[in-house]
Amino acid sequence: MEEKVLIFGHKNPDTDSICSSIVREILDKKNGWNNTIATRLGKINKETQYVLDYLQIPAPKLIEKVEENQEVILIDHNEFNQSVEGIENAKILLVVDHHRIANFTTKEPLYYTAKPYGCTSTILYEEFKNSGHKIEKKEAILMASSIISDTLLLKSPTTTKHDIQALEELEKIARIDIKEYGLEMLKAGTNLDDFSEEELISLDAKTLQKENAKFVIAQVNTVSIEEVLKRQESIEKAISKKIQEEKLDVFVFAITDILNSNSEIIVLGDKKESIEKAFGKKLENNRMFLEGVVSRKKQLLPVIDKNI
Amino acid sequence: MEEKVLIFGHKNPDTDSICSSIVREILDKKNGWNNTIATRLGKINKETQYVLDYLQIPAPKLIEKVEENQEVILIDHNEFNQSVEGIENAKILLVVDHHRIANFTTKEPLYYTAKPYGCTSTILYEEFKNSGHKIEKKEAILMASSIISDTLLLKSPTTTKHDIQALEELEKIARIDIKEYGLEMLKAGTNLDDFSEEELISLDAKTLQKENAKFVIAQVNTVSIEEVLKRQESIEKAISKKIQEEKLDVFVFAITDILNSNSEIIVLGDKKESIEKAFGKKLENNRMFLEGVVSRKKQLLPVIDKNI
Repeated sequence: MEEKVLIFGHKNPDTDSICSSIVREILDKKNGWNNTIATRLGKINKETQYVLDYLQIPAPKLIEKVEENQEVILIDHNEFNQSVEGIENAKILLVVDHHRIANFTTKEPLYYTAKPYGCTSTILYEEFKNSGHKIEKKEAILMASSIISDTLLLKSPTTTKHDIQALEELEKIARIDIKEYGLEMLKAGTNLDDFSEEELISLDAKTLQKENAKFVIAQVNTVSIEEVLKRQESIEKAISKKIQEEKLDVFVFAITDILNSNSEIIVLGDKKESIEKAFGKKLENNRMFLEGVVSRKKQLLPVIDKNI
Repeated sequence: MEEKVLIFGHKNPDTDSICSSIVREILDKKNGWNNTIATRLGKINKETQYVLDYLQIPAPKLIEKVEENQEVILIDHNEFNQSVEGIENAKILLVVDHHRIANFTTKEPLYYTAKPYGCTSTILYEEFKNSGHKIEKKEAILMASSIISDTLLLKSPTTTKHDIQALEELEKIARIDIKEYGLEMLKAGTNLDDFSEEELISLDAKTLQKENAKFVIAQVNTVSIEEVLKRQESIEKAISKKIQEEKLDVFVFAITDILNSNSEIIVLGDKKESIEKAFGKKLENNRMFLEGVVSRKKQLLPVIDKNI
């Protein structure tokens, strides 16, 4: 492995992190850069598994940490606390991302491509176009899956015209009904029955470290918030344990209804009043309903970050 | 001014910071983005003045600080301590840079284009190519001047094949003898007679803040190191004053012979032994000759940073 350049998305990988890593490797090969390899920092979620099964391709290799000076490419993230163990001493050659930049530093100049789009794959789609390489059906479905996942079929407020245009063109190349495929994919991702509460709260969790506060915003997608709330008591136990173990000031667990575009959040921790302040609403039974809220990046994180 | 998006390079602007800012504004206009404007964070140096006079274009407007939420575009830098006062609360829309990323953070996603090239203008040259816009003679000379300045006519070890290729093609568009023009431009920049010692040590100075050390690496280019060293005593006085005022641990003043590609450094400050350690050489009379060293970014900064 050591001589390969490792490509990976963030911890608790979502569909964009996995599919964009695979696409990046394909694009690198087309550009004649043959020693890069897609890897991953965690378990494949059910939504992503649906994509891999659909395309009959294997999951990228799991990695747990990197050695000093390991050459790496970061996809769909830049913050070190969302990245692999050892990232501080790795050699970051390239970042492709659509998030804010924070907790990120390098010793050397590097390639960094960020665009404020809804999805990393939309940036890769534009790189394909600029490079003049033809997009094959497989790549088209991989990138389309990322866009569908990150934008909830273009319904999330993070959606930009670039994502819409990319998905339109990718649908033509893929020659499948993207809406039908996308709904199946999203539904596959919302089957939460097999997960323990510990797993539920860490499936897609982002830890954020501020000067005077450490907090987590975790999110699950569902087609029925009610269904998930049946497990509220056990979920709260798991969250409380996590808060203690990681010395968190607050833990926000967002249950997002992807069909109706709303979220219910469960909030625990010493600083839970700051969440009430953030959204101008009282928690009842540790819960709060947020109408129209589906995006952690755009609707939860900035509001919480400002008030904590 | 307020409704304009301000484009600027780093403090103590060099030719790349000024010319790339002007080129960025031109490129924005060609892309239909009409409300961006090139500005600058400091005095125009003599080398850059040579370029502006040659092209008969005025210097960008000087700005001292920015208001909260001012929209800005950072050129040729990203570290906040090299940027404008108030940058922490500005809204950074875009960065185009060729340096390492450090001391940089945003609240929102943004456009960020970094490439490990010798010069920011080489990145802009590639953006011109990708966008399909024609490069006019004026833009060609502006970008060529940046490349000549940052790479010392392609002789600096920071030079990449991308810079070489860009300069070659820009020479064709500019229809001037680039070597002749470049030597005149570099020589214009090395006339240091008019500068006080205080000015000399801050003409092109970068402040770096580490957890346990704050240091400055300043650089002047010359065609005669001897000539500059005649003023060593007064230069040291100016440096000592600076160290006191800014509570610096070490100040490195590099006098770089651009014709023969060597540097003499003058070093003062409590941590000056760490500079001796860094280069495995003793200071004599506070000085050290560094053969083949011309690049702060590639040959001074990383070595010093590792040993301080």
